Amino acid sequence: MASIFGKNVKISIFGQSHSAAIGVVIDGLPAGIKLDQEKLQSFLDRRAPGQSRYTTARKEGDRPEFLSGLVDGTTCGAPLAAVIRNTNTRSSDYDNIRDVPRPGHADYTAHIKYGGFEDVSGGGHFSGRLTAPLCVAGGIALQILEQKGVSVSASILEIGGSREDPFGKIEEARREGDSVGGVIQCTAEGLPPGIGEPMFDGLENRIAQAVFAIPAVKGIEFGRGFEAARLRGSENNDQFCYDGERVRTRTNNHGGILGGISSGMPVVFRVAIKPTPSISIEQDSISYSREENVRIAVRGRHDPCIVPRAVPCVEAACALAIYDLMLEGEKKQ
Amino acid sequence: MASIFGKNVKISIFGQSHSAAIGVVIDGLPAGIKLDQEKLQSFLDRRAPGQSRYTTARKEGDRPEFLSGLVDGTTCGAPLAAVIRNTNTRSSDYDNIRDVPRPGHADYTAHIKYGGFEDVSGGGHFSGRLTAPLCVAGGIALQILEQKGVSVSASILEIGGSREDPFGKIEEARREGDSVGGVIQCTAEGLPPGIGEPMFDGLENRIAQAVFAIPAVKGIEFGRGFEAARLRGSENNDQFCYDGERVRTRTNNHGGILGGISSGMPVVFRVAIKPTPSISIEQDSISYSREENVRIAVRGRHDPCIVPRAVPCVEAACALAIYDLMLEGEKKQ
Amino acid sequence: MASIFGKNVKISIFGQSHSAAIGVVIDGLPAGIKLDQEKLQSFLDRRAPGQSRYTTARKEGDRPEFLSGLVDGTTCGAPLAAVIRNTNTRSSDYDNIRDVPRPGHADYTAHIKYGGFEDVSGGGHFSGRLTAPLCVAGGIALQILEQKGVSVSASILEIGGSREDPFGKIEEARREGDSVGGVIQCTAEGLPPGIGEPMFDGLENRIAQAVFAIPAVKGIEFGRGFEAARLRGSENNDQFCYDGERVRTRTNNHGGILGGISSGMPVVFRVAIKPTPSISIEQDSISYSREENVRIAVRGRHDPCIVPRAVPCVEAACALAIYDLMLEGEKKQ
Amino acid sequence: MASIFGKNVKISIFGQSHSAAIGVVIDGLPAGIKLDQEKLQSFLDRRAPGQSRYTTARKEGDRPEFLSGLVDGTTCGAPLAAVIRNTNTRSSDYDNIRDVPRPGHADYTAHIKYGGFEDVSGGGHFSGRLTAPLCVAGGIALQILEQKGVSVSASILEIGGSREDPFGKIEEARREGDSVGGVIQCTAEGLPPGIGEPMFDGLENRIAQAVFAIPAVKGIEFGRGFEAARLRGSENNDQFCYDGERVRTRTNNHGGILGGISSGMPVVFRVAIKPTPSISIEQDSISYSREENVRIAVRGRHDPCIVPRAVPCVEAACALAIYDLMLEGEKKQ
Repeated sequence: MASIFGKNVKISIFGQSHSAAIGVVIDGLPAGIKLDQEKLQSFLDRRAPGQSRYTTARKEGDRPEFLSGLVDGTTCGAPLAAVIRNTNTRSSDYDNIRDVPRPGHADYTAHIKYGGFEDVSGGGHFSGRLTAPLCVAGGIALQILEQKGVSVSASILEIGGSREDPFGKIEEARREGDSVGGVIQCTAEGLPPGIGEPMFDGLENRIAQAVFAIPAVKGIEFGRGFEAARLRGSENNDQFCYDGERVRTRTNNHGGILGGISSGMPVVFRVAIKPTPSISIEQDSISYSREENVRIAVRGRHDPCIVPRAVPCVEAACALAIYDLMLEGEKKQ
Repeated sequence: MASIFGKNVKISIFGQSHSAAIGVVIDGLPAGIKLDQEKLQSFLDRRAPGQSRYTTARKEGDRPEFLSGLVDGTTCGAPLAAVIRNTNTRSSDYDNIRDVPRPGHADYTAHIKYGGFEDVSGGGHFSGRLTAPLCVAGGIALQILEQKGVSVSASILEIGGSREDPFGKIEEARREGDSVGGVIQCTAEGLPPGIGEPMFDGLENRIAQAVFAIPAVKGIEFGRGFEAARLRGSENNDQFCYDGERVRTRTNNHGGILGGISSGMPVVFRVAIKPTPSISIEQDSISYSREENVRIAVRGRHDPCIVPRAVPCVEAACALAIYDLMLEGEKKQ
Repeated sequence: MASIFGKNVKISIFGQSHSAAIGVVIDGLPAGIKLDQEKLQSFLDRRAPGQSRYTTARKEGDRPEFLSGLVDGTTCGAPLAAVIRNTNTRSSDYDNIRDVPRPGHADYTAHIKYGGFEDVSGGGHFSGRLTAPLCVAGGIALQILEQKGVSVSASILEIGGSREDPFGKIEEARREGDSVGGVIQCTAEGLPPGIGEPMFDGLENRIAQAVFAIPAVKGIEFGRGFEAARLRGSENNDQFCYDGERVRTRTNNHGGILGGISSGMPVVFRVAIKPTPSISIEQDSISYSREENVRIAVRGRHDPCIVPRAVPCVEAACALAIYDLMLEGEKKQ
Repeated sequence: MASIFGKNVKISIFGQSHSAAIGVVIDGLPAGIKLDQEKLQSFLDRRAPGQSRYTTARKEGDRPEFLSGLVDGTTCGAPLAAVIRNTNTRSSDYDNIRDVPRPGHADYTAHIKYGGFEDVSGGGHFSGRLTAPLCVAGGIALQILEQKGVSVSASILEIGGSREDPFGKIEEARREGDSVGGVIQCTAEGLPPGIGEPMFDGLENRIAQAVFAIPAVKGIEFGRGFEAARLRGSENNDQFCYDGERVRTRTNNHGGILGGISSGMPVVFRVAIKPTPSISIEQDSISYSREENVRIAVRGRHDPCIVPRAVPCVEAACALAIYDLMLEGEKKQ
């Protein structure tokens, strides 16, 4: 098991970068939800490439086809399946990967795991392309959450270490055939208190599990996160108070989660995205066939920075985790 | 579902801080594993309180009783159940919590979630005490991993922001009735390449899911983590090379994981622990019954810093995640 | 995984016939449920041995101790753990089993599966004794179902082929050192229409999965079951009609389940219980050590018929499956 | 959750009778398995309609398209997705169902469960058509099992109560606008001893869970099944003996399963299939809109007997359950 997430709404993602199609099956959506397909498309377009000069020129036009689960655009209770055809592929770009793994990619680890049978083209199932079906599922979750009064919104906090000029950092890296990473901050507002389960199924556990499905994510922190580790308890504790009849905390160092359960304050977390491993600069690698060290320069089109495209993916992952836990909570009431 | 973890070896943790007992059921252990109970006890003793002046004086003597799953100290294939009796309880210390939630604790969120039926004594199921059965299960996983050539070891990286004098920071906080947090680094060595599943069941996803079960954890990062977000691809990519017949990377910024799958390099991650929320300093809170803001000073014995005791817990969580994924991998070969 | 059941309320059963204790952890019970422990005990007493001359003389007094999950007899949202100590054991009765598997028991299959490390005493984890914790969990589910207006009730339909004199058949078998099986019918009334999921998680799938956990069950049929296979569609179809404002069917050949989902008619199923494999009559078996055919007569106390004691077990299994699916349904509303 | 099965190889089935497509995602297949697509097609053809005069005339030509998971016809470790387009649909046949549920079908229960949003055309997700993707997944499992030396084979035992002239019974029913059911027997040979888990994940539990996913199945029995309930222990117990170095039982009343675990003897079970609920004969039903009793005659093409087409479905369900449990066993060795 691997590409399946969720306990109450289960998503099963499939596809490789250059397979006939990629897609997702969502099992457990309630019946009677009217899907706003235009809105979903707008959401998907946010992760699509070719939207600005800072992202790769390959245009995919990720328009999902809904194979099942909808009747007249409304969920019917049956599993919803959506596929996106892979059209604009140039798989010969990747011939070299079969023998020489790209540093920073999953080429080598997949090679060991699947004994040479892995699909190497474009990274196969490990490609960032697989975040498209993640966004289809997440985009649907976002629409349902919105109807429940929960909004999830992520944005770029910094790129290449800069909060002031992130896009300058991207441009600089591009010119040098290099790449940069960054930090994304995500906030979920409107989540009622009491969502999340103790120990292994808390909001932090499940959001983390979902977010690490996005390639290039190497860290996650909630509320003050690593900074909290340097504070005193008296500084970090968020004190409770009444705000009219509503309970709130004066500060939100806990990022809206205590004991894995939502407090009613905004859920806030940050995600570290490593720099895109595909760079034009020549690097050391190995040749399986020749059993010797070789040099590799990754050809083809690649983003000098995938952080902008990762923003909706983080929202999608967060929405899926939160929605699943909201259902978990609802069934007990 | 909540206190259950794992797909191939499932652990189910139960108990509250002041219930009759706490414990764990482990379902899926292979038969024929000789358990070194003395070694397990030494491991458990590392998380027990009262070992140094820096930890709370309450002594629990966490000696698990094995109710099932062992025949003459060797696993028999049936679920292993271990319980630890709660003896030294002083639950009247906690009477106030029922009405006034402690800042930084799960008192309030549990109150909302369980509608006032939650066990408030000592934090109930959300107590750090529940890491004892986590360590029983994790300690067993560590022994099995060791037999497979995998060692997991965590240590304190910093406390209260200091790498030089962590225990000075604890002492300082204690004198002032305050508390400090810290950062723990954990390394798993000897893991063969190819362990971990794509997308949602990668090593990062599953280690994160396990580690966030430890109360007070607010962040996790793998390899260079958040620092990687500030590097160039050319700096962060770990280049491959042959080391004799073995493949390795020249650096280990990826923390031993690429695409969720082990590379054969040491798995390295860091965990942010917030400062203990229990402090003697008076804080703001609310009274449910009086529906007004009140002041609270948390009485009773509490650690000014739980970081030292969290170290074996991180090892336990890491071991459980890794062992579960190793089994996942083995079944496909 | 093995001794874990349920998706919304997960039960994890542990113990062997002669281990220190047997028990169950129930994860996912809602908070605030007042447990009627006396009623639970009465339910458990129905499966206990020694109640009549037709059941074994060994008296166990299966009184569960609740280790966690309850505060003042009411569920608190944390996992509920209950253990039953094994006291009256006579394990030397079973020494022979280690080398000579008893026909009809799991001795041989467990031996192969666990490589000789299995707990052979009294059948180990495969013992009918493990239905005690099943009944603890099921008894709790029955109480919750009752509060929801659902009652589950099973009874003996036939024993040793006789519907007229089942206990005569038992007595006859006992006299001859032999054993008999029988058929149990179970009915769940009050289940609202719409419970159950399509395909693999229908009421039939999940009740069957639960019921086959009871040792000696070899068949299950719903509604008319195998008899339906001999009817015409025009005979077997249950025609709909209004009964006031309520929809019902004129007959109940479908056993209250259509497409895996409850119709609002009583859920009805029958379970085939094979004759107790432990008999005094000498049988053929093998000796692992001598690698030759040998004769075996199973010594010790054994029921000539376990059907009466299996009745509450069937209710327990049914209640657990139904309750789990009711929660599944509730979370979607 | 609903249309998902398996723990080690997870299949997720989607589609409705008249949606754009039906299909399946299989997550967890090992890499490097060469799929014999012609053989798979032959298997699928066995469940396709229009093969004989005894099955419906509607021809679907169920040719799955593989969207992912294969590279040059060999599994690559990524989830395998296969879809079958629905082409030859005549959904206006089913307009009436929206208001008047067909007796014996899931129309009414789905209507209640999904609040009127269900897809009624052709039974929607509850259609027997959904056994096509089940057979795709099962057909792949059968090929893998064959490579492991395990063969699964089902056949018709009786139809309409007759073992002598089953097809005469079908013809008779057809002439009268009625339908008949039957019993299918399935045997799995070559399964090594030791496969299956105790309690809830035994071979019986899991095969039953899978088989009840086939519409119209109302009962299952293993080995002697319900007949065993009428035997003495001395008759029903299968005595062990050496057959050369191999252990076997002299008889196979246990159907190859003891304690949920394979004994090495053939796994044998029988499945009761109710008569097709679609019949031309007029029946009673209700009108939701008019809230009154009405008469209904099911129009359109329907099989007077689906037993012949259910045979490969039983093989598929059995193969999926067995393969999943074989993987479960392998990971522990």
